[in-house]
Amino acid sequence: MKPIQVGVLGIGTVGTGVFEVLRRNQEEIRHRAGRGIEIVAVSRRDRARAREIVGDSARVVEDPRDIVRNPGIDIVVELIGGCTLARELVLEAIAAGKHVVTANKALLAVHGTEIFEAAHKKGVMVAFEAAVAGGIPIIKALREGLTANSIQWLAGIINGTTNFILSEMRDKGLDFDVVLKEAQRLGYAEADPTFDIEGVDAAHKATLMSAIAFGIPVQFDKAYVEGITKLGARDIRYAEQLGYRIKLLGIAKRRGGTGATSGEVSGIELRVHPSLVPAKRLIANVEGAMNAVMVQGDAVGTTLYYGKGAGSEPTASAVIADLVDIARLHTADPGHRVPHLAFQPDAVLSNGGDLPVLPMAETVTSYYLRLRVADQAGVLAKVTGLLAEAGISIDAVLQREADEVAGEGATQTDVIILTHDTREGAIDGVIAQMQALPTVLAPIVRIRKEELA
Amino acid sequence: MKPIQVGVLGIGTVGTGVFEVLRRNQEEIRHRAGRGIEIVAVSRRDRARAREIVGDSARVVEDPRDIVRNPGIDIVVELIGGCTLARELVLEAIAAGKHVVTANKALLAVHGTEIFEAAHKKGVMVAFEAAVAGGIPIIKALREGLTANSIQWLAGIINGTTNFILSEMRDKGLDFDVVLKEAQRLGYAEADPTFDIEGVDAAHKATLMSAIAFGIPVQFDKAYVEGITKLGARDIRYAEQLGYRIKLLGIAKRRGGTGATSGEVSGIELRVHPSLVPAKRLIANVEGAMNAVMVQGDAVGTTLYYGKGAGSEPTASAVIADLVDIARLHTADPGHRVPHLAFQPDAVLSNGGDLPVLPMAETVTSYYLRLRVADQAGVLAKVTGLLAEAGISIDAVLQREADEVAGEGATQTDVIILTHDTREGAIDGVIAQMQALPTVLAPIVRIRKEELA
Repeated sequence: MKPIQVGVLGIGTVGTGVFEVLRRNQEEIRHRAGRGIEIVAVSRRDRARAREIVGDSARVVEDPRDIVRNPGIDIVVELIGGCTLARELVLEAIAAGKHVVTANKALLAVHGTEIFEAAHKKGVMVAFEAAVAGGIPIIKALREGLTANSIQWLAGIINGTTNFILSEMRDKGLDFDVVLKEAQRLGYAEADPTFDIEGVDAAHKATLMSAIAFGIPVQFDKAYVEGITKLGARDIRYAEQLGYRIKLLGIAKRRGGTGATSGEVSGIELRVHPSLVPAKRLIANVEGAMNAVMVQGDAVGTTLYYGKGAGSEPTASAVIADLVDIARLHTADPGHRVPHLAFQPDAVLSNGGDLPVLPMAETVTSYYLRLRVADQAGVLAKVTGLLAEAGISIDAVLQREADEVAGEGATQTDVIILTHDTREGAIDGVIAQMQALPTVLAPIVRIRKEELA
Repeated sequence: MKPIQVGVLGIGTVGTGVFEVLRRNQEEIRHRAGRGIEIVAVSRRDRARAREIVGDSARVVEDPRDIVRNPGIDIVVELIGGCTLARELVLEAIAAGKHVVTANKALLAVHGTEIFEAAHKKGVMVAFEAAVAGGIPIIKALREGLTANSIQWLAGIINGTTNFILSEMRDKGLDFDVVLKEAQRLGYAEADPTFDIEGVDAAHKATLMSAIAFGIPVQFDKAYVEGITKLGARDIRYAEQLGYRIKLLGIAKRRGGTGATSGEVSGIELRVHPSLVPAKRLIANVEGAMNAVMVQGDAVGTTLYYGKGAGSEPTASAVIADLVDIARLHTADPGHRVPHLAFQPDAVLSNGGDLPVLPMAETVTSYYLRLRVADQAGVLAKVTGLLAEAGISIDAVLQREADEVAGEGATQTDVIILTHDTREGAIDGVIAQMQALPTVLAPIVRIRKEELA
C-alpha cells in the first residue's frame, strides 16, 4: 500500500521527535501499520532551521497553509500550539478532508466542540493522544481499553513542571518561590510558567479526559482551576506527618446518576487543585516530572497509567500512535472508528444535559485546614465546635507545640484539622466563621484531600 | 445497526462478569460501540446453573459445539480454559468464520501460532486482552499505544497469587509454606496452586507479551520458568536491608539488534523468576493480588500499567473491550485491523528468525547470592576471589553476625553478595565452584536482580 503522506505544521521540539522516531523505527512501524508513514512537508517560520531537521527528505515551507492546502497530504499534524492560528489551520485542514493529529490540549479543551463537530460532518479523524500525559496511552485506555466500564472517577498528575516543583519542595524542605527558580534554571519550568503553576495546563488535560470518560462535551470554562503557588513547605511537612503527600491533581468524578438517591446532585466534578493523597498510594510516589493517571471503573476497579508526560520523543510516541491508527482506518467506513469523545455524537449531546459540570460549591471531598491560632485555652474547642455545628466530622487533628513569635512575646501555634467528606459549600461557610474568630491570627490554609480508594 | 450476537463457551466466574457488566452498562457500551452487543447463547455442563446466571435472556446449551456451529453467532467467547477442548472449539469457530475472544493464556502461549495463522487465513479476529493482566489494557497499550517504539524490555507482576504470597511473606516475616496455606484459605490460591507458584501462569502471559512487543512467534517452550516455592523469609529480609523487594517478574528483553557491537548475541530474553527490584521503583510497591507491567520503549521511555489482574469483573472488562473492538471492525476490510501479534504475519516470521529466544545461559543480569559459610578468616576473600577470576564485579556485600548452630559448637554466618551485570552462564560456573568449597555449608541461594532503570 502507498505510504500515507503527512504534513507537520510547526516543526519544533515535538516535531523533531516525530521526524526522528519515524525515521529510526520506520521498519518496525511499517511492519505494525501495514503501510509506510512519510513526512512529506513541514512548516516553520525559520525555514533554515526546519531544513536542518528534515534534510532533503521533506518539503520545507514557511506558511503552514501551504501544507493544509496541499492535496497530496492525507494527515496534518498540528504542533503550532495556541488557539488562534492553530484553530484556523485545523478547521481548514478538516474542511479540505484531511485527518488531523494534534498535541494541542488548549485548542481542544476550548474549541473541541466546534472542531469535533466539523470533523464528524466531514468524516475525518482528529486524534489527540499527545494532548494528555505525553507518551502514556491514556486516551486509548479511556476510549477503548476501559470501554466496558461506567467510569466513576479519574485523577491524574498531568503536569510535569508542577510535580517536579512539589517533589523538590518536599525533598529539600524549600518554599515554592525558591524551587520555581531552580526549575526554571534546569529547564523544567518555562520563563513564563503561569499556565503550568496556576493549573491551567492540567485543567485543559482534565477537561479532555472528563469528556472521553463520561461522554460529555469539553467544558474548560466550567473547570475549577487552582495552582500550587500558595503552597508552603510547612504544609507539605504537616501533610507528611499525617501520612499524606501533596500533589497537583486533575480530577473528574461522576456524582449521582444510576442508583443515586432522590434529591442527590447528579453531574460531573471537574477540578484541578493541590490535593493531599495517602502516601501509600502508588500515585503519591510519582516523583519529578513524571505523569500518572488513575482511573476507577465500575468493572475493572482501580487502574493506573504512568510515564513521561512531556518531552520530544515521549510526545512523538503518542503522535505516531495516532498516525498509525489513522493510517489503518483512513479508508474505512467512519462508522468503524472510535468516536472522538469515546461516545457517539448524539450520546455526547444527551449526556451533556444529564451530566452537567457541577459548580465547585457542590463538590464533595475532605479537607486539610491549617489555622494559625493564639495558644490559649479553648481555641481548639471553639474551632471544632464550628465544624460540628455544620455537621462536618473530623478525621484527625494535629496541634503543633506553641512557638514564640519574635518580638511579640505572645505565643502562637498551628492547628491542623483533617475532615471527613463534606460539601465544598459547607466548608466554605465554616472557614469564613473560623476566620472571623479573634484567636485565628492568619489566613486559614485549606487544601483538599483525596483518598483515591 | 443490528446488535452483534455473542456466544459464551463455559459461563463460570468470568462469564458471569461479562454477562453482568454487559447488562449493567449496556447503554454506555452501545453509545461507545455504536451498536449493541448481545449474549444470545451460553454453554455450561451444569445447565441449571447457567440458567440461574442468564435467566431467560439467552439460550443455554450443554454442548459448546452447539454455539460454535450456530450460524447466527458472530463472536465466540472462549472461557472454558485448558488446551484440548478449548483448542478444538476455537479452531472450529475460526473455520466457521466466527471471531473469537479468549482469556485463555495457556492456549495462546502454546498453540498461538496455529490459531493466529488459521484466523489470518479465514480473515477473522482472535482477541485476547483478558489473557494478560486481567482488566489492565496492556495488550492494547503494547500493540497500539506504543506502536511508534522499538520496545527494549518489559517486566511485569502478572500473577496475583504469587504477588499476594510475597507481600504477605514480607509483611509478616513468614516462610512460603505458611503463607501459601493462608492464601488458599482466603481464596487467593487454588487448591492445586502449581501453575501459579511455579511461575507457569506468569510464563504464559510473558510469552504473549514478548510476541506482541517484538513481533516474534509465541514460544512458551523456550521460556525460562522458575517459581517462588524456594524463597525464604530470610532472603526477603536481607533484600529489604539492601534496599530491594522481591517480586515474581515476567521479563522479555531485546538484546543486541540495531546498534549491537559485532559478536554480541542478538535475540530475546524470555524468563519468569523471583527478582530483586529496587524498593523505590513503583513496581516494587505493587502489593497484594494487584498486577503491574513496566514497558520500556526507545521513544516513550519507561511506562507502567497497573490494575487488577484477575477476578470476575476486571477480566470481563477486558473481554468486553475486545467485543467492542470486534463489533467495530467486524465488517471492515481485515487490512484495517491490528495484527494479532502487533506486526504483519510476514514480519513475525522474519523477526522470529532474527530474534530467537535466547537460552538462559545467555541472559545478562545481576545477582543476589546468599552463602551459608563457616565463620572463619579468609572465607570472604576466597568467595570474592572466585568472582574476580570470572571477571564478575561486586556491587555490595552484606555479612551477618555469626550465629551459633545449636548442638554443634561451631559458628556459621550468612554472606550476601550483590553482583553487577554478568552472563548467567558465567555465574553458574562460579556458583558451582563456590558450592564445592568446604567452608560453604549449605546450598547457595541465587536470586536474580533487575534494576528496571
